[in-house]
Amino acid sequence: MEPGSESRDARPAVTPVAAVLPAGGSGERLGGATPKQFCAVQGRPLVSYTVRAIERISWISDIIVVVSPENIETMKSIVEKYDHKRVMIVKGGITRHRSIFNGLKVFAENEFSNHLLQKPEVVIIHDAVRPFVEEDILSKVVMAAKEHGAAGAIRPLVSTVIASAADGCLDHSLERARYRASEMPQAFLFDIIYEAYQQCTDYDLDYGTECLHLALKYCKTNAKLVEGTADLWKVTYKRDLYAAESIIKDNLSQQVYVITDVKEGVAQVGFLLHESLKSQIKVEAISISLSKNDSHLQNIFSGQCYNFICINDKKCAIQESQKLVDMLEKSHISLLYPVVLILVHLNISENTSFSIGMEELTRIKKFATEEKKKNILIYGLLIQYK
Amino acid sequence: MEPGSESRDARPAVTPVAAVLPAGGSGERLGGATPKQFCAVQGRPLVSYTVRAIERISWISDIIVVVSPENIETMKSIVEKYDHKRVMIVKGGITRHRSIFNGLKVFAENEFSNHLLQKPEVVIIHDAVRPFVEEDILSKVVMAAKEHGAAGAIRPLVSTVIASAADGCLDHSLERARYRASEMPQAFLFDIIYEAYQQCTDYDLDYGTECLHLALKYCKTNAKLVEGTADLWKVTYKRDLYAAESIIKDNLSQQVYVITDVKEGVAQVGFLLHESLKSQIKVEAISISLSKNDSHLQNIFSGQCYNFICINDKKCAIQESQKLVDMLEKSHISLLYPVVLILVHLNISENTSFSIGMEELTRIKKFATEEKKKNILIYGLLIQYK
Repeated sequence: MEPGSESRDARPAVTPVAAVLPAGGSGERLGGATPKQFCAVQGRPLVSYTVRAIERISWISDIIVVVSPENIETMKSIVEKYDHKRVMIVKGGITRHRSIFNGLKVFAENEFSNHLLQKPEVVIIHDAVRPFVEEDILSKVVMAAKEHGAAGAIRPLVSTVIASAADGCLDHSLERARYRASEMPQAFLFDIIYEAYQQCTDYDLDYGTECLHLALKYCKTNAKLVEGTADLWKVTYKRDLYAAESIIKDNLSQQVYVITDVKEGVAQVGFLLHESLKSQIKVEAISISLSKNDSHLQNIFSGQCYNFICINDKKCAIQESQKLVDMLEKSHISLLYPVVLILVHLNISENTSFSIGMEELTRIKKFATEEKKKNILIYGLLIQYK
Repeated sequence: MEPGSESRDARPAVTPVAAVLPAGGSGERLGGATPKQFCAVQGRPLVSYTVRAIERISWISDIIVVVSPENIETMKSIVEKYDHKRVMIVKGGITRHRSIFNGLKVFAENEFSNHLLQKPEVVIIHDAVRPFVEEDILSKVVMAAKEHGAAGAIRPLVSTVIASAADGCLDHSLERARYRASEMPQAFLFDIIYEAYQQCTDYDLDYGTECLHLALKYCKTNAKLVEGTADLWKVTYKRDLYAAESIIKDNLSQQVYVITDVKEGVAQVGFLLHESLKSQIKVEAISISLSKNDSHLQNIFSGQCYNFICINDKKCAIQESQKLVDMLEKSHISLLYPVVLILVHLNISENTSFSIGMEELTRIKKFATEEKKKNILIYGLLIQYK
């Protein structure tokens, strides 16, 4: 079972879908020099969390990240460091709309003839500073866009919206229940949003903020509005970075990676464990030959999961565990946070006496004592199995 | 110098001002059983931070906290535990407007004949879940209310606001720059807002959200809108609690309490220290007789400041320091976070030799080693002074 396989139910048919992530903001509202999409949250730039949230969804083919010219090198190094796949970096414009337009051009314009991408049927537009987007809402806006031409996530208003008169006094207030906040993600039939950007005025490109508005104004497309969840919010102020950090910490402590050997009996146990855990905790499972797939495992360990269950039936379990622990150490995730590694040793052969199992456990115990000093907490579990 | 003395410049003349804090919300958007105003942030309920932000302002006479009937006892215990002053607890209604109306009645209605409070000229309305309100914005809305009859803090919109049609599709989007989010605090001439609540319909009381709207509709008062700072935001979702916690931690590490003996020379040093520190760090200063004012000091220590500078010129400095440390320990603030206590011993007498000073410091050093085990970090500073 591959990570991301839980996405199959929600996959919007076989529509070609791409995503454009405007990440060109200057972060002036954050009061800091670093634009918020590049601020480190748990040591990792915010934009990397957002890219990861998109790239783990298998039915999104290309991810276009649009950054301002001075941040192209920064973004390149992020893509390399966090091993992001299917990402293309595009130079942004001076406003949000101009940046999104630039992002769309890679699917249609001759200037990108060297690396023109296949035009998607539907394009998702999502902010780089909304890292907690889930597959469910992405799937919903894509399917709604297929039907209506355009769709966007909305949320109830938190504050009443008011209009002020020229003298700085209240002119009128809007009835809160009749309005909604327009959030991200949004999705469009590519031809509609691209047409809208081609048609729109410089004033729209320089002062507009709303893609749904362009689709309505220039393509007469009334976007379908889809109620989103509270975690779609945009990291805007410093307090939002604090919140993002706490949520990421919470998420990390609430997910677990099950790694099993490829042997059928062992992989089957991994599958059953995945099935029984998935209602309580976010769980991903992988069957892998530990001796061969170093780079794949390294990716898993750099994905900032802190809890691992490793299942095998080998005699040489301790060597294999040592190898895992070496990789964990190399990934540096245990520098700041305790990593939990539960080693499950399935003893399938019938003629192994209980005492050998105890010997194995004693070795694991000693091994665990050593590793605890490095902030890696190892638990051993021996299961006799016929 | 008393805490809160920095408020003198901003005091809105001698207008009698009271504050009403609606705290009746059920916290359904937070996804937890505890209403957000009672959620513990750093071990202390959110509402207590908000009350403290208001009560430290000397020109606000009465603070009315309106809570739902089932939370009256909880609120009473919070007022007692955190030693809140000038607070009256009032039973809320089933909606926000009904709760605010109940809060206003204690200044005007016969049903409160036993404890009717003096009617203020201006009343502030502020949410219990906006703990970071500063004196500056409170002063601004009060002064604007005196002039215009009503005033409220506003912020730029973070998201575009849209209206949906009956079919769940976009009807139109509002031009973001023309609108503002209405935030708190708001302030009103008491007679205007009370009149508005008396005049308004049951529909207003049950479905309305905006006090400024009532003042406009029923008293033809166009409220003055005052741009507020980003920290006026309302704790609405779980992420906001995370953010609040981080901000409170940040604030705590960036403030210091200067405690000096009442003797003139020593108090003068405290004053000078206050003056030189105040541009860099939030500082409060107090001159107090350590032997007599236990309850006052206990309040300071329970106010969740983590940094203290204590200045004296006594021979028996170590006993006095021990007493301070005992009080700090009793307040439990050092259980979770390191407390820094800088002991400054002014040696004013001319005939004390340097060696006695060193002896004193050695004793402090030993004392500090002991206290460090309890998470209280003590630094000693001896100043020879003629």
